[in-house]
Amino acid sequence: MTYGLTGLARGWVEPRGIVTAAEAFRDLDLAPYGRFVTGGWDVSARPMSDTVAGLVAERVLDADLVAAASIEAAGHEARLRPGILDGPAVGGSNLDPEAARRGSLSPRAKIEALVADLVEFQSEHGLERVVVVDVSSTEAFRDDLDENPDLASLAALDAALDRSESSEPQEGSDGHHLPASVLYAYASFAAGASFVEFTPNSGSSSPALRELALREGVPHCGNDGKTGETLFKTALAPMFAARQLQVLTWQAYNMLGNGDGAVLQNPAHREGKLRNKDKVLHEFLGEHHSHVAIDFVPSLGDWKTAMDFVHFEGFLGARMSMQITWSGCDSALAAPLAIDLARLCDCAARAGEAGEMPHTAPFFKSPMSGGTHDFHAQHSALLAYAKKHAKS
Amino acid sequence: MTYGLTGLARGWVEPRGIVTAAEAFRDLDLAPYGRFVTGGWDVSARPMSDTVAGLVAERVLDADLVAAASIEAAGHEARLRPGILDGPAVGGSNLDPEAARRGSLSPRAKIEALVADLVEFQSEHGLERVVVVDVSSTEAFRDDLDENPDLASLAALDAALDRSESSEPQEGSDGHHLPASVLYAYASFAAGASFVEFTPNSGSSSPALRELALREGVPHCGNDGKTGETLFKTALAPMFAARQLQVLTWQAYNMLGNGDGAVLQNPAHREGKLRNKDKVLHEFLGEHHSHVAIDFVPSLGDWKTAMDFVHFEGFLGARMSMQITWSGCDSALAAPLAIDLARLCDCAARAGEAGEMPHTAPFFKSPMSGGTHDFHAQHSALLAYAKKHAKS
Amino acid sequence: MTYGLTGLARGWVEPRGIVTAAEAFRDLDLAPYGRFVTGGWDVSARPMSDTVAGLVAERVLDADLVAAASIEAAGHEARLRPGILDGPAVGGSNLDPEAARRGSLSPRAKIEALVADLVEFQSEHGLERVVVVDVSSTEAFRDDLDENPDLASLAALDAALDRSESSEPQEGSDGHHLPASVLYAYASFAAGASFVEFTPNSGSSSPALRELALREGVPHCGNDGKTGETLFKTALAPMFAARQLQVLTWQAYNMLGNGDGAVLQNPAHREGKLRNKDKVLHEFLGEHHSHVAIDFVPSLGDWKTAMDFVHFEGFLGARMSMQITWSGCDSALAAPLAIDLARLCDCAARAGEAGEMPHTAPFFKSPMSGGTHDFHAQHSALLAYAKKHAKS
Amino acid sequence: MTYGLTGLARGWVEPRGIVTAAEAFRDLDLAPYGRFVTGGWDVSARPMSDTVAGLVAERVLDADLVAAASIEAAGHEARLRPGILDGPAVGGSNLDPEAARRGSLSPRAKIEALVADLVEFQSEHGLERVVVVDVSSTEAFRDDLDENPDLASLAALDAALDRSESSEPQEGSDGHHLPASVLYAYASFAAGASFVEFTPNSGSSSPALRELALREGVPHCGNDGKTGETLFKTALAPMFAARQLQVLTWQAYNMLGNGDGAVLQNPAHREGKLRNKDKVLHEFLGEHHSHVAIDFVPSLGDWKTAMDFVHFEGFLGARMSMQITWSGCDSALAAPLAIDLARLCDCAARAGEAGEMPHTAPFFKSPMSGGTHDFHAQHSALLAYAKKHAKS
Repeated sequence: MTYGLTGLARGWVEPRGIVTAAEAFRDLDLAPYGRFVTGGWDVSARPMSDTVAGLVAERVLDADLVAAASIEAAGHEARLRPGILDGPAVGGSNLDPEAARRGSLSPRAKIEALVADLVEFQSEHGLERVVVVDVSSTEAFRDDLDENPDLASLAALDAALDRSESSEPQEGSDGHHLPASVLYAYASFAAGASFVEFTPNSGSSSPALRELALREGVPHCGNDGKTGETLFKTALAPMFAARQLQVLTWQAYNMLGNGDGAVLQNPAHREGKLRNKDKVLHEFLGEHHSHVAIDFVPSLGDWKTAMDFVHFEGFLGARMSMQITWSGCDSALAAPLAIDLARLCDCAARAGEAGEMPHTAPFFKSPMSGGTHDFHAQHSALLAYAKKHAKS
Repeated sequence: MTYGLTGLARGWVEPRGIVTAAEAFRDLDLAPYGRFVTGGWDVSARPMSDTVAGLVAERVLDADLVAAASIEAAGHEARLRPGILDGPAVGGSNLDPEAARRGSLSPRAKIEALVADLVEFQSEHGLERVVVVDVSSTEAFRDDLDENPDLASLAALDAALDRSESSEPQEGSDGHHLPASVLYAYASFAAGASFVEFTPNSGSSSPALRELALREGVPHCGNDGKTGETLFKTALAPMFAARQLQVLTWQAYNMLGNGDGAVLQNPAHREGKLRNKDKVLHEFLGEHHSHVAIDFVPSLGDWKTAMDFVHFEGFLGARMSMQITWSGCDSALAAPLAIDLARLCDCAARAGEAGEMPHTAPFFKSPMSGGTHDFHAQHSALLAYAKKHAKS
Repeated sequence: MTYGLTGLARGWVEPRGIVTAAEAFRDLDLAPYGRFVTGGWDVSARPMSDTVAGLVAERVLDADLVAAASIEAAGHEARLRPGILDGPAVGGSNLDPEAARRGSLSPRAKIEALVADLVEFQSEHGLERVVVVDVSSTEAFRDDLDENPDLASLAALDAALDRSESSEPQEGSDGHHLPASVLYAYASFAAGASFVEFTPNSGSSSPALRELALREGVPHCGNDGKTGETLFKTALAPMFAARQLQVLTWQAYNMLGNGDGAVLQNPAHREGKLRNKDKVLHEFLGEHHSHVAIDFVPSLGDWKTAMDFVHFEGFLGARMSMQITWSGCDSALAAPLAIDLARLCDCAARAGEAGEMPHTAPFFKSPMSGGTHDFHAQHSALLAYAKKHAKS
Repeated sequence: MTYGLTGLARGWVEPRGIVTAAEAFRDLDLAPYGRFVTGGWDVSARPMSDTVAGLVAERVLDADLVAAASIEAAGHEARLRPGILDGPAVGGSNLDPEAARRGSLSPRAKIEALVADLVEFQSEHGLERVVVVDVSSTEAFRDDLDENPDLASLAALDAALDRSESSEPQEGSDGHHLPASVLYAYASFAAGASFVEFTPNSGSSSPALRELALREGVPHCGNDGKTGETLFKTALAPMFAARQLQVLTWQAYNMLGNGDGAVLQNPAHREGKLRNKDKVLHEFLGEHHSHVAIDFVPSLGDWKTAMDFVHFEGFLGARMSMQITWSGCDSALAAPLAIDLARLCDCAARAGEAGEMPHTAPFFKSPMSGGTHDFHAQHSALLAYAKKHAKS
């Protein structure tokens, strides 16, 4: 993102894939690309230059851009802090030792560490506002998260966090078991930062966190960036519904090659992702057979290929089909949306808006308060927001 | 259509593919399926049973439905009248001799014969209103039709028709050269019938005919039913635009096996079709490379297969692709739309509406007064119409 | 198959998909289609007319052919006997009560009942030879079948069968646990009939059964008809190998709608099928990532759709892809191969050949003694066999 | 090719896509990659570095390889000579002035200039043998080339060349109208060099040139490298034939983005290419409908996408389909084959073989003396050649 923002700010890169670069957003009070200072948390000890080299080798990042933006990239890397892990199971082989140490803190202490990082980051760089975007790996799906009583209200959450101070981990259902994404969201709101949940993680979507966002007066949105297969699915499914063509079956086969794909090989992690991808259709298509698979295909690297098969019935029982193959670059599809969401959060915060941001629904597989999964209806609502909030 | 309407009226057939069967149209004053009496004009001497046998063999029509609706089908066949040809070139080998005779009449005389057919049809069956739907083959594309001075106003058209009375065919630019579809539309309006141009033909889309429709107080719509490849194109292209993904290339390869495909082998006939299919994208996608091919593939029979390849560019220049294969049954996709349009025309006529029907835009590749090609925007406008005109 | 054979014998049906109908087999001593009398075993109480009605509704079987061959079909149904089940788990809801009774017999008694059926069938219809073709559902995969000591030799198998006479079922590793397909193969050989294992079941492929076939002097072949996805895979993969194009990944997504698909929803049953489908590539492609999925898609009925994605690397590291979508009718692909194999078995038996039939390798996903999975090499070997055994 | 050969010789690049790198060719007396010295003729004044920069930008050539092999590349560029044009129509905007001057020479004088280049190249670099590979653009298709009396025998060709000495261009059917590829082949043979016709051009395929090759004792082969769509077509079509599945239709839609594609926009140039691509199927598939389209899609650059649709009929008239999408990099597919053919030519020349090289059939869309288009049969013949000519 640092490369992208630098490239955009300097005019080296065209704003392809950046929704808010469209004419319709010209009068919305969005921060220019060059005004952003990036930083972050990382749980891995792998130097950023390794990741970058990989993306250059895969031809996602241009070597010239990497060279030209090297100072900005070095600055970004210097601004990285050790992250906190989501449970002992996740992480892999190359953990940052300080991240490992932070992982052993109590939940409250973790939150405090994150808040301190945010406050320091903001003051050090003289920033007016901060936006936190969760682009971490998909956390293990916890069946009962939606009904987790500890996340049902802010009071319940605070109580759970308090209990965990005086108990040992593993002793039952208390704050020790809260996903990392919940702690990040909590810390962001506590520090007055807005929050974007770009993954299927719980993040700020629970009643407890929504309450906290309102109390702290910060805007937030999520979940799970709609970058590829779900994007075209929610653009196409309304067409079948509008035409009264009965979809009998929608099979979706997703192949991923990057770290995301590797994490999703773990069934617990895959579950959260699949839920978001599958449930979007039920709003439009009524009773039908659907199946979503996500397979790890290492040779694809940062590329994703999705093959969807739609079987539908028309007049007089005619059975017809539509097949779609989507071949996209994950980073190139996701990065501009993260930039869009950071700008929209910042814009909302400046305007004093707090809580969920329904106009961000087109960006998410599982919009926190979107109303519909129909991409076109979502996008119309976003345009209406832009029009309503235009600078006069 | 007789089979379909009979099947729907009796409840043997589910209203798949019928847009107006959706809940949203429940309060619109639409005629029930069983109230329609079908008839038509035909230029071919081929008995309808041959065509039906072909569709049964291809498994488009169900043999049981054909048997059950045989009385209605016989009635329909008895109500057919000889049609008029679009110039000597078109038609093929098996012309109805009476249609051939009618073909030698002057344009005015042709119109009168068609009006007489309509008047007789209406009175014989005691019908309140008549809707004419043009589902004939694509006429040869006449380059200058859009700028044909004879179609520029009703006065000019009437003058051309008058001139042709006193001249011999082939003597220059007069009524002899008017496409058959124009004469059908003229006759329909003259008889007070509404008119649906379901093909790429000129039909009622010229200024002259639009004027006539207003003078006679009848509603009409067109052109060119949006049944397959153009349908999904206009549902998908707005997604790329909304996401600021730059479409570089959109290649569309259409394969057709039925009579339509055979006629479209003729480049002059193909031209009209291709224009409508290609131009829909330019509204959304700006500068890009596009190509539409239509090939006749006899083995497909009544089925159509379209293979589209979309090449697009995202953030940091990443070049990605989307490929779509659509395999549909032409009759099963077109017939319900023709039923929808007949119901909507009838409904508009009953309500005293006259002239073009902008709310029918989602049904057409080249909507007469549609404004946008965006399928979702068009469909939203249709829903708004249904809401506004709901019976209280 | 009765319909197909009748249609072929009468000349109503063209021999599409019948390999042995090719010119190259003209001089091989193959029985004409009209000389076959069909019969069979069935574990289901569902009348055949139900199945046939389903295939007619799905337009796999032509209603005219069904009507014309109704006498032959009735004869076939009259010749059906109750089958034996593969363990208590399999079967479904509508079991033939006599099949259920047979299921409680000891393994030896099951074999005797099957042998008696065969002997009676042969004598009643005055048949020279009998060929048994296993087209039952895929049995549950038993991990250790390949290494099952009871199937390691004929002596071991006979000993196991003897032990099971004097023991109760469920008491350990004895004949009670032998798959039904093994008992069918045993009975066939004991009755002097040749045997075709058209499914992934164990059938006659174990050392014990191979020994029995040689002792009884009967030819046999298997396993698992190569009808669709594996067919084109084994035709295409050698091309990549020949061109030294390194396949990185071969993903195969199979969608099935018929009873086969329903049974394969059960992971144990799916396992056997997947093994055969996946392992064919390793011969050609060396180290690569591959994945085969089989999903049940009820709306497809007797149709199968397979979507394969091949990712490969060429010169200078260029990463390229090939994608294949196959849409086939299961019965129409399998039935002619079953006819081919019955003819080839009969021909081999008449010529006094015994044991495995390596020339049948192109028909199978997992050929019993094929040497290679290369479809073209397999077919060349079949042609060479036909040439060598031509009637002079 | 210089980059590829250098990379291979130094071991920087794996021999992906190089057929002769397979184990089966280990004992054939093939020259190692490092023994080749490359040179060539060029009609364009565009510096090679421009082309290379384009391929690097498109990520076909690796920037590191380009840097590492820069000395070899500079050497290659220094060894380039001005080429001769195929008629005044071809060429484009950026002609080498010396190539333009050579274009005005008489055919004999052109041949002499080319021979002189070859002799000098060979002596200057102390080469044992020279192989000329035609990788120029597709020449305009000349309907009557197959029956051109001037190419019917060497005597006729020499007479035509003589006549053209004493006449002015454009005066009728003489040597002035011979395609450039014929003159290159003539010059190669006259200089004792072997010749590979890698394009659809006439090259060495006419009776006259075949005669000359035999007289001069040099091996040669062609025409038209089989790199993509035709490759998989000739690997798959035999499968349908072997299985007696009746192909009804084979539609092939080719999209190309490089200079090749631009030249093929010209219908005359496209014709030659299409002929080779289409005729390969008729050997296997008997009567069927086929169509091959080649469209220029600039955004694809050096990449090619082909979408094929195969409609076929199986048992009981079931109509099924197979669809293939191939996405390949033209240079990465063609370059290794050119290396293979240079090595095979050189090997044949060293062994004293002269005339056509039937074992090279798998490399060509239109093999000069291949016998069959069946890729697998062709490859088997190549393997047999390698075995027979193995060094003992």
